[in-house]
Amino acid sequence: MPDMVLINPFEVPADGSDAEFLAGWQAAADYLQTQPGFVSARLHRAVRPDARFRYVNVALWESAQSFMAAVGSDGFRALAAGTAPNFPALYEVVATVGADTTTGEPVGGAS
Amino acid sequence: MPDMVLINPFEVPADGSDAEFLAGWQAAADYLQTQPGFVSARLHRAVRPDARFRYVNVALWESAQSFMAAVGSDGFRALAAGTAPNFPALYEVVATVGADTTTGEPVGGAS
Repeated sequence: MPDMVLINPFEVPADGSDAEFLAGWQAAADYLQTQPGFVSARLHRAVRPDARFRYVNVALWESAQSFMAAVGSDGFRALAAGTAPNFPALYEVVATVGADTTTGEPVGGAS
Repeated sequence: MPDMVLINPFEVPADGSDAEFLAGWQAAADYLQTQPGFVSARLHRAVRPDARFRYVNVALWESAQSFMAAVGSDGFRALAAGTAPNFPALYEVVATVGADTTTGEPVGGAS
């Protein structure tokens, strides 16, 4: 079974609050990686300051159930309180083009 | 040098227009993969119909310059006309948690 992909764009203003956001994201990630079903997470920051979503988290979970249990936990709710507006949702890969069209696996970055 | 990550969330309604959107995305992807600097693309579809962004494209490009040249081309502009509202931006990975914290490479999905 392929993992579920959690994609969460964050509306963080490019006004110098990067350190605060990063510390909060790291604390949440440190918690989530102790939860059953967590696989990994990658936090992306926009190159340009005018991007609609300055940060986008892309994470892998073993199942939708494990993700929902983790983010519904009291521990996570406390950590997520006050975070910038964000739009988390679970996704499945439906099409690939380029280096990894046959395996469905994420693509290496060495090309 | 790490690749640039293009992340583009699309506001496609979950009203049965999937086939039209997918055909349009595939046509654009088929064009983009002929352009210098394109590495790969993965199209994600939300599991739940109430997701704010039903589709999210995550693609790798060798550089910001190659991406900007490709999407600024007449060929791409023609293909992208009429697409659902979307918010493309280039990103860099700034933090990772879990399986791939040491390499910075995308994580395999086999765990």
